[in-house]
Amino acid sequence: METAGKVIKCRAAVTWEANQPFSIEEVEVAPPQSQEIRVKIISTGICRSDEHALTGNMKDVTFPVILGHEGVGIVESVGEDVQDFKPGDKVIPLFIGQCDQCPSCKNPRSNFCLLNMGRTPGVMADGTTRFTCKGKQIHQFTNTSTFSEYTVLHQNNAAKIDDETPLGNVCLIGCSFTTGYGSVVNTAEVKPGSTCAVFGLGGVGLAVVIGCKLAGASRIIGIDVKKDKFERAKELGATECIAPQDCDKSIVELLLEKTGGGVDYTFECIGNIETMTSAIYSSNFAYGTTVLIGISGLSKTITFDPMMLLTGRTLKGSVFGGVKSKDFVPKLVSDYNAKKFDLDKLVSHNLTLEKINEGFELMRAGESIRTILTF
Amino acid sequence: METAGKVIKCRAAVTWEANQPFSIEEVEVAPPQSQEIRVKIISTGICRSDEHALTGNMKDVTFPVILGHEGVGIVESVGEDVQDFKPGDKVIPLFIGQCDQCPSCKNPRSNFCLLNMGRTPGVMADGTTRFTCKGKQIHQFTNTSTFSEYTVLHQNNAAKIDDETPLGNVCLIGCSFTTGYGSVVNTAEVKPGSTCAVFGLGGVGLAVVIGCKLAGASRIIGIDVKKDKFERAKELGATECIAPQDCDKSIVELLLEKTGGGVDYTFECIGNIETMTSAIYSSNFAYGTTVLIGISGLSKTITFDPMMLLTGRTLKGSVFGGVKSKDFVPKLVSDYNAKKFDLDKLVSHNLTLEKINEGFELMRAGESIRTILTF
Repeated sequence: METAGKVIKCRAAVTWEANQPFSIEEVEVAPPQSQEIRVKIISTGICRSDEHALTGNMKDVTFPVILGHEGVGIVESVGEDVQDFKPGDKVIPLFIGQCDQCPSCKNPRSNFCLLNMGRTPGVMADGTTRFTCKGKQIHQFTNTSTFSEYTVLHQNNAAKIDDETPLGNVCLIGCSFTTGYGSVVNTAEVKPGSTCAVFGLGGVGLAVVIGCKLAGASRIIGIDVKKDKFERAKELGATECIAPQDCDKSIVELLLEKTGGGVDYTFECIGNIETMTSAIYSSNFAYGTTVLIGISGLSKTITFDPMMLLTGRTLKGSVFGGVKSKDFVPKLVSDYNAKKFDLDKLVSHNLTLEKINEGFELMRAGESIRTILTF
Repeated sequence: METAGKVIKCRAAVTWEANQPFSIEEVEVAPPQSQEIRVKIISTGICRSDEHALTGNMKDVTFPVILGHEGVGIVESVGEDVQDFKPGDKVIPLFIGQCDQCPSCKNPRSNFCLLNMGRTPGVMADGTTRFTCKGKQIHQFTNTSTFSEYTVLHQNNAAKIDDETPLGNVCLIGCSFTTGYGSVVNTAEVKPGSTCAVFGLGGVGLAVVIGCKLAGASRIIGIDVKKDKFERAKELGATECIAPQDCDKSIVELLLEKTGGGVDYTFECIGNIETMTSAIYSSNFAYGTTVLIGISGLSKTITFDPMMLLTGRTLKGSVFGGVKSKDFVPKLVSDYNAKKFDLDKLVSHNLTLEKINEGFELMRAGESIRTILTF
């Protein structure tokens, strides 16, 4: 059936209100407008950021909304003024776009494209959304909304990937994998032979472990309260794992002791203020770098002695690994296709879209690494 | 008179107790021991760190003590096992030494030499000091103690400088100038064409201004409550100066507005928690770097939303500009001798050692940039 130019009816997981379960609905997805593409989503991961949005712990989320931002799919049709995509192209939606025109895109040290900044959140550039359900306009989320069989993206919010890419776990490159891996190779620039500590061994933390191993770190210390995550972390490259609750001293003291004065690079992949502080204090006083990756949510603050930094520490944050999304994602997918790293070990559960609430429950209970939904 | 191997009697400014005025005394300076050199100090600057030590706002200071750490002098005699120095050499004492053996020295990203770490503070490696006065042992300060006509240094705490160097204002390279300049070229790595904001236009802040100008910054915004510092800052390279108390909005709002979204590099040169926070918040959200240079003193903490960093900000600190002291100081002195930069404008007052208390009063009142003491 020719669908281009027509409204598509399909299934989506709609969030009608904050803190409510997802509701599987039939939604209408409008055709792409100028500079937009409509994409059939093949798979999408469940991420803690979706949970932050769901619980009202993130700015710029307007309900009702279709969440989801870690997906992969196939272009169904394109709007006017779209040069780089055609129907049939495989794409990864990009919640951090890349316009190549704004000051952030032009700065080699930044990836936070200003394309969508200042625009009303939850809608496309023309001020409307492409989703309706039961006569109501449904908002978009982070320019992606992948919890829908079809979604519409601005062309700057999508990366074309190799045609031969198997569409499944590769969706992780749309968020968690790139966030973790990029934080290592791009934000921290981990050097061969260095020591690394990874706080939190979920999907992002394990991607950090993979990144540290590929960067040639000599020691990769994984830290998590859930010890059932340790085997997987070690398979991926962790040289040792620590459950803080099992130690007779603080994790900071232990790490300082183990590394003779502090870790070269520490990564906080949870979004917990206490572990952020531990990550800072366990980094080497003279040359340690701490990268904050986890999202703490709204109205949280961190407090520490600024003199901790004066001796030479660096504290950084990055979103989506600090990488220029449209440039980096296709390369990373090519590396994945060339089997330079494995994504399968980051996936603990595969569910259909209908079981999305179950997938969120698994994440809330800390029982999943990453759950992938298929349509 | 041949003094080598003998105790030298000379004048020094002794601090008998915390929060007391300096007392000009005749002190005895013992000959240098193994790996030590005895240096006749020609000039020395007054720095806020000396004030922190004086007021008990710094760790590892034991009274009575001879403070001072920003000096220049001439080697009078050397102890055993000293290869790199001979009597007559011109030297700058280094409060951050460089042993080339410890993990910090071996790490290219660090300058915080561990040479003196773990040693009892205020004494030399053998556990004693080289100063006595009125029968009492007088402690050393940060391995330098330049408020004395003669002082004894470990050979790793001294940099030999060009023979033709005029000994006077060059002492600023022993602390304030290198701290500010190194923070720009080494810690922040300011790129040509970028925007910079400098909070605090004292000796360190003005050195930051000089560094930013030499690094090719297109815009250098100086910020200070004391407007009489603006003319000097502009002579050295500031393109504009702001007195926060004269603005009808916060300094953060003003800087965001002036730079269209945030400054590329911000430098805090005061040690004030509030200006540190302003420096972070006024840096560009996507690629801004903030360098903390000022010393806040003991038991101070900074509190901010860690998500401020997640969008791509970097927060760093450095001491002595993060540079490897023994390698960098001689080069910087050569650049000074080649007139690549001027130190004279950083000096507001010249006093003799006897007027040291007056020099500290000028600093406390915010009336001096840098006061240089001569003997």
